[in-house]
Amino acid sequence: MDGDRPQGQINPGRYEDAVLGFRNHWYPAMLSTDIGEEQLVPITLLGENLLFKRIDGVVYAIADQCLHRGFKFSARPECYTKNTITCWLHAFTYNFKNGELIAIPSAPDSRLIGNRRLHSYPVQEVNGMVFAFVGDLVPVPPLSDDVPPGFLDADWCVVPAVNVSSACNWRLAADSGFDPNHIFIHKDDHFLKALDRPFPIANRLVGGDTFHEITEITGPGPKGLVDALGKSEPVFEFEFECEGERGRMASRIPPNEMAYMAYGSIQGSIWLPGVLKVDPWPILGMVHYEWYVPTDEKSHRYFIAWGRKTVDPVERAAFRDEVMTKWKHLGFDEFNKTDLEANLAVEVGTDGLPYKSAENLFEGDGYTLVWRRLASKFNRGVQVRGGAKA
Amino acid sequence: MDGDRPQGQINPGRYEDAVLGFRNHWYPAMLSTDIGEEQLVPITLLGENLLFKRIDGVVYAIADQCLHRGFKFSARPECYTKNTITCWLHAFTYNFKNGELIAIPSAPDSRLIGNRRLHSYPVQEVNGMVFAFVGDLVPVPPLSDDVPPGFLDADWCVVPAVNVSSACNWRLAADSGFDPNHIFIHKDDHFLKALDRPFPIANRLVGGDTFHEITEITGPGPKGLVDALGKSEPVFEFEFECEGERGRMASRIPPNEMAYMAYGSIQGSIWLPGVLKVDPWPILGMVHYEWYVPTDEKSHRYFIAWGRKTVDPVERAAFRDEVMTKWKHLGFDEFNKTDLEANLAVEVGTDGLPYKSAENLFEGDGYTLVWRRLASKFNRGVQVRGGAKA
Amino acid sequence: MDGDRPQGQINPGRYEDAVLGFRNHWYPAMLSTDIGEEQLVPITLLGENLLFKRIDGVVYAIADQCLHRGFKFSARPECYTKNTITCWLHAFTYNFKNGELIAIPSAPDSRLIGNRRLHSYPVQEVNGMVFAFVGDLVPVPPLSDDVPPGFLDADWCVVPAVNVSSACNWRLAADSGFDPNHIFIHKDDHFLKALDRPFPIANRLVGGDTFHEITEITGPGPKGLVDALGKSEPVFEFEFECEGERGRMASRIPPNEMAYMAYGSIQGSIWLPGVLKVDPWPILGMVHYEWYVPTDEKSHRYFIAWGRKTVDPVERAAFRDEVMTKWKHLGFDEFNKTDLEANLAVEVGTDGLPYKSAENLFEGDGYTLVWRRLASKFNRGVQVRGGAKA
Ligand code: FES
Ligand code: FES
Ligand code: FES
Ligand SMILES: [Fe+2]
Ligand SMILES: [Fe+2]
Ligand SMILES: [Fe+2]
Repeated sequence: MDGDRPQGQINPGRYEDAVLGFRNHWYPAMLSTDIGEEQLVPITLLGENLLFKRIDGVVYAIADQCLHRGFKFSARPECYTKNTITCWLHAFTYNFKNGELIAIPSAPDSRLIGNRRLHSYPVQEVNGMVFAFVGDLVPVPPLSDDVPPGFLDADWCVVPAVNVSSACNWRLAADSGFDPNHIFIHKDDHFLKALDRPFPIANRLVGGDTFHEITEITGPGPKGLVDALGKSEPVFEFEFECEGERGRMASRIPPNEMAYMAYGSIQGSIWLPGVLKVDPWPILGMVHYEWYVPTDEKSHRYFIAWGRKTVDPVERAAFRDEVMTKWKHLGFDEFNKTDLEANLAVEVGTDGLPYKSAENLFEGDGYTLVWRRLASKFNRGVQVRGGAKA
Repeated sequence: MDGDRPQGQINPGRYEDAVLGFRNHWYPAMLSTDIGEEQLVPITLLGENLLFKRIDGVVYAIADQCLHRGFKFSARPECYTKNTITCWLHAFTYNFKNGELIAIPSAPDSRLIGNRRLHSYPVQEVNGMVFAFVGDLVPVPPLSDDVPPGFLDADWCVVPAVNVSSACNWRLAADSGFDPNHIFIHKDDHFLKALDRPFPIANRLVGGDTFHEITEITGPGPKGLVDALGKSEPVFEFEFECEGERGRMASRIPPNEMAYMAYGSIQGSIWLPGVLKVDPWPILGMVHYEWYVPTDEKSHRYFIAWGRKTVDPVERAAFRDEVMTKWKHLGFDEFNKTDLEANLAVEVGTDGLPYKSAENLFEGDGYTLVWRRLASKFNRGVQVRGGAKA
Repeated sequence: MDGDRPQGQINPGRYEDAVLGFRNHWYPAMLSTDIGEEQLVPITLLGENLLFKRIDGVVYAIADQCLHRGFKFSARPECYTKNTITCWLHAFTYNFKNGELIAIPSAPDSRLIGNRRLHSYPVQEVNGMVFAFVGDLVPVPPLSDDVPPGFLDADWCVVPAVNVSSACNWRLAADSGFDPNHIFIHKDDHFLKALDRPFPIANRLVGGDTFHEITEITGPGPKGLVDALGKSEPVFEFEFECEGERGRMASRIPPNEMAYMAYGSIQGSIWLPGVLKVDPWPILGMVHYEWYVPTDEKSHRYFIAWGRKTVDPVERAAFRDEVMTKWKHLGFDEFNKTDLEANLAVEVGTDGLPYKSAENLFEGDGYTLVWRRLASKFNRGVQVRGGAKA
């Protein structure tokens, strides 16, 4: 328990093996509104069961399994003081803030007291989200290395709005999020009709290898990729012929000149351990963030937050209202929910074994290949059942 | 994908290993009435997911998994023309008739176009049933080799009536179908009461080895076995003693001389890849067919069709009405449904591991042994997850 | 089938391996009231499927799987005489009392008849409970070796009251049953309030190693352990401090001098193959018995019976009424049901892999260690799927 690894010993693993995600990174566990004062919330991250508690406003997390015989605290949690949790089975009592075993009623002088502790997960609450660090690296890398650039800026107002579970592996969601060609699925989304916005059905690479122009961000700080969509060509209509019949796919709303420009100015970027930034989105002045957080081998948790620049408290409050009354509905229910549906059908189509069955990648898959390569190179270890991969 | 095997390379496998059925055979996938014009129907056969579509009256089938990333077409199928299917995820568009990849909106000049194709399953629709060939043999053997003799005759009128799923391995159903001793289960069936028909509770071999008189049909065309029930003795009543008490089992309707003759004139036969013919049944002039089609390791699909000789359109229509209003109810609901129940209890009794746990075969099991031997010798390969067994 | 092992060949196995329990022991299968005359009752014990039948008042048990092809008798049992069972599929008929195959209607002279038999499980019905012996040892050890001392005494009146299934491995229940420190879970039970009884929240060892004073009973007859609670100290109240706050746990009803004495006079003992005796409990003059009977790897059956000394028929009838109208409710619903809840949360907390994940045992776990050691030494073999471990 708690054999921490010094930072020198980082062994990045392959994306193909990261069925449970990458270890030693920060992940959003829940929204701030999901946990009230002294409330206990169990959450599974990367196959590990965590138990969160808010104490005097600050959120802490411990392993949701008693050291003694493995009782799951959250099955029937007991807290005799604000700062502790007591196992319901034999009353082992722990300091919730650091996991330390502090009392055993039936053996008050036990040598275990003060010498054993539950794994205590580093937690940081920022921008209305609760982040936890899943790993054993010391010192713990800063949260700022695991979120998109700018996310933590002081003049940046973030409103998180979505926290849902999705029954597919997290990598299907990450691959698809950064892949500009998946936009075909959005063509019937009411979001586009509500905004009367022409939207491409495909994205054609100019010269055939635009993806070489994807920018790799590999210096200090967050590691990620910035797309080069501005250099590619949005396709609003497509025709083909088969057996003498012609077929036609098209944007529901015909494009105008503005549509090409507007689409070209949208910049997507993806960051380790698995978070997408789209700027601007859904409208000018706003930025879209989404996370793909591994729960277990076959499910992940999907978060959305939207941001805009402002320090003014009144504007901040107004932006929050706008997100919760407008964008949560239009941006998620009528747009990104379609992504969840698409990912599920890949999980099912590959019999729950994505990355084991053959893919047939084409020229447009450069984004995905570059993402998998970057992720394989800069992660801090592959998570496996029972801890870090040796 | 689609590395076809020339017919010279047929490797029959053991029945004991054929948990997913025999590869390179024709199987009924559905009834003609199950698929309308331009309707898409997903069906799993031998562990493979197929997608069927009727185009201008003709039924075609392709693999229900996009070549690109594995999206399951049937999760949200899109067809921009009659002859094509378009993957909902990145719009790869295929010719449904041959599986060829014909267009990619985001890479219209991709080298994949025209060079990749989905597996396209040979389909033949006859006698109101849709048959598909699951395998990779070229040339594809004729359907007539995989159905009972006479089934395709021009003067033969077939009305298929039953297509249901059953939660047991297909072999339990095939073994039991050809086994004359399983008739014990039918003794209380309302079918017998409705027809006031004496029916044996067992079938006794004369001389103890009548099964040597089973006829093996192993020449060109269908491979199968024809029973020798005419030479065995139907048992309508049986008594035994135990611990001083006598027990008696008997046909609900006492037998008369006609009953012996009538039963002796019923001829059963079983054919690869797993179809039973009973002639005559349920009444003189009619023939009963039933198929056991592997779905996956623990379930199969059960089809019944009945036939009679006639070319007259009015008689054909009348026969169809008779089947659907009378025999579908009496012959299936009140008779063959009992077979499904019996097979389920063997699947459960052997913990889902039939053929792995010991059997204690007796003299009456000759039919089963001969069927397993014939099937092991003349099949065209054992199906395994991921394709044909090497 | 039925290759019996002479008693010389007993190979005790490790408790850690006994996921399916210990073979060659007697276990309660049901209560006498669960099976009426000529009623058939299927029960799974240690992963084996048994079928019970009461014939002329005596209960017998056979394997619930036909020797022929594995049909599960209980799926549709047929009995043509009181003493027999006939397989619904091909009518193999067995003597229920000894499992012998006595008749096959379709092969009345089969060499199998009289030469094959179903496994017949020894059964004994005592004290309102039906016990079965699961194993292959000959001669079969006496039931009296597998129940707590005194249980079979002639002047002892036993009323069994509880027979429920619990979704956790049997060992979690056995460990916890003999463990005096688990009493923490009972502090809110209505049983205590109903009896206005002070009850400790923990049990402190005096000198730190009281468990060396646990008495091992390893001579002829039942093998077991008798606790030394009288030498330990019940704890009715406990305080601790953490981060400047004080926490307090306490018995809902404050203790008086009598409470210490009363608690110290309660003697618990545990016996192979997994039965607890608590004397006196729930009140003076009564004795509590509970069994943990393995069903499969992840579930067991939990029985409770209560006893008191009396030979008078009127007193016996009154005691039965008292148990069924009072103690079944107070003693189980409002007390021991809490044990089931605790065990479930350990099964879940250890991901269904108790004994594979690390435990951190403390001074108070001596009881558990001694029990595991005794069980590992004196069992008659570890049960494995498919029979006894080689
Ligand atoms: S399992 Fe938690 S204190 Fe024993
Ligand atoms: S998965 Fe079908 S086109 Fe990409
Ligand atoms: S399976 Fe029981 S008689 Fe055949
Ligand atoms: Fe999307
Ligand atoms: Fe039948
Ligand atoms: Fe208890």
